[in-house]
Amino acid sequence: MEIIDGKKISNIIKEEIKIEVDQIVKNGERAPHLAAVLVGNDGASLTYVGSKVRSCEQVGFQSTLVKLPYDTSENNLLKKIDELNNDKEIDGFIVQLPLPKHINEEKVLLAVNPNKDVDGFHPTNFGKMALNMETFLPATPYGIIELLKRYKINTSGKNTVVIGRSNIVGRPISILMSRKGNPGDSTVTLVHSRTINLESFTKNADIIISALGVPDFINSSMVKKDVIIIDVGITRVKDDSHPKGYIIKGDVDFNSVKEKASYITPVPGGVGPMTIAMLLKNTLLSKSLKK
Amino acid sequence: MEIIDGKKISNIIKEEIKIEVDQIVKNGERAPHLAAVLVGNDGASLTYVGSKVRSCEQVGFQSTLVKLPYDTSENNLLKKIDELNNDKEIDGFIVQLPLPKHINEEKVLLAVNPNKDVDGFHPTNFGKMALNMETFLPATPYGIIELLKRYKINTSGKNTVVIGRSNIVGRPISILMSRKGNPGDSTVTLVHSRTINLESFTKNADIIISALGVPDFINSSMVKKDVIIIDVGITRVKDDSHPKGYIIKGDVDFNSVKEKASYITPVPGGVGPMTIAMLLKNTLLSKSLKK
Repeated sequence: MEIIDGKKISNIIKEEIKIEVDQIVKNGERAPHLAAVLVGNDGASLTYVGSKVRSCEQVGFQSTLVKLPYDTSENNLLKKIDELNNDKEIDGFIVQLPLPKHINEEKVLLAVNPNKDVDGFHPTNFGKMALNMETFLPATPYGIIELLKRYKINTSGKNTVVIGRSNIVGRPISILMSRKGNPGDSTVTLVHSRTINLESFTKNADIIISALGVPDFINSSMVKKDVIIIDVGITRVKDDSHPKGYIIKGDVDFNSVKEKASYITPVPGGVGPMTIAMLLKNTLLSKSLKK
Repeated sequence: MEIIDGKKISNIIKEEIKIEVDQIVKNGERAPHLAAVLVGNDGASLTYVGSKVRSCEQVGFQSTLVKLPYDTSENNLLKKIDELNNDKEIDGFIVQLPLPKHINEEKVLLAVNPNKDVDGFHPTNFGKMALNMETFLPATPYGIIELLKRYKINTSGKNTVVIGRSNIVGRPISILMSRKGNPGDSTVTLVHSRTINLESFTKNADIIISALGVPDFINSSMVKKDVIIIDVGITRVKDDSHPKGYIIKGDVDFNSVKEKASYITPVPGGVGPMTIAMLLKNTLLSKSLKK
């Protein structure tokens, strides 16, 4: 069994980005610039945004954090997005989700200029991805594709089972894995909450990509020998023996499947660190497309 | 075995549309207006476009056929699209495919205003479909969904196998069948040219949607009892005994599977007639959204 080391790969990608940024700056241009909009003070969101800002510093990007109070009106947020859309010094920006309930997420998503939508969440970019046109791929699925590529895992003709049909992971990775290309060309089955006899699918899978958010959901009895497992689940589970009071768990019972799998992503340290690396890669792409 | 009669259902839908159009005109408004752009003189394309124009007349729509010579430049076509985008009297328009080789189809597709893209081919509309937002659904997949709905076929939790990953049928119907909703909520497997052991998937399918374009590809040994078959294949096969010199064949060997299937769409007369009906429905929707 080989561990797919997302932490290591994400650091390699960041180093590659840093080299490109150094070259850009050396050429007398400004560095790529990523902005993040955060509404409210949700703990997890603060952590995510903070780590995005730190990653920008690591690779030499400029970054801007726009903090708005929890009771910001939808209109006010849309105005801020319009400013960022029109700011020529900003190559890409993200709106950290979830948003407060009084704000319509769909409306906000649609307001982002697709050319600056480095999260790849805008329907125009999502549609381009599905139609195999060049665009910003959503960061987490993009990270999975990059891990498969760097570990030289052949996906063509393989039976890939994707668990969960969310807009940010399950749906897009199911499309990417079945598109023409490499990684891609898999026979993909998308299973979800309405699926009957889920095990009958996972047992025949060469590759399982799980984005369910249920800790230890997958154990060795549900998979076949030499399966490749990509675990996208990240759930905080209460654990008083740890200083933080919780531990992070994936969808896969790692100890149960580790002898049976040929490759597996750990949690933490697998897909997680890749998401930010790919967000930076999209921002770099956005800057280069503008030239 | 029950035949899914697409001809009958498409006529019912056209009658429903006609009633709405009559009401619109009675209210003193103009009727919905669909335009079609045809470049060159391809025989099949002329037939398709001609039948779209006749269907417009049937339901009381205005229609405009824009015919451009085969050697029209890309720039000239883009100018014509721009005119149609800005013509307030036109609710929707289609550009008949395929286009001559000297014209970039992707560029043309992207030039159509998504609000008039009643074919549902623009990435913005495709992305909205995938993200479950309201939009124009691509006409053929939309027709399949409508047939399943009118025949009250339960798709939730069913194993649906889609054969073929084209942008106009296979990919979008695989998304629609696995989206939340009814029809939808299926466990969908998308099989294609790189799939290994295709039969192992079709044999376990409750529903098979085939959009391959290979006549008589599916026979009874490949399906299980009571399977529901939606045959999207339309291939002209040479046959000198027929006055036209050819017959139309689907992907499914009808005589072979008819005793085993619980429902089946014939070819012709199944999915085919639904495509135009749904194109009209999208045009009607476009008019109503503008109010």
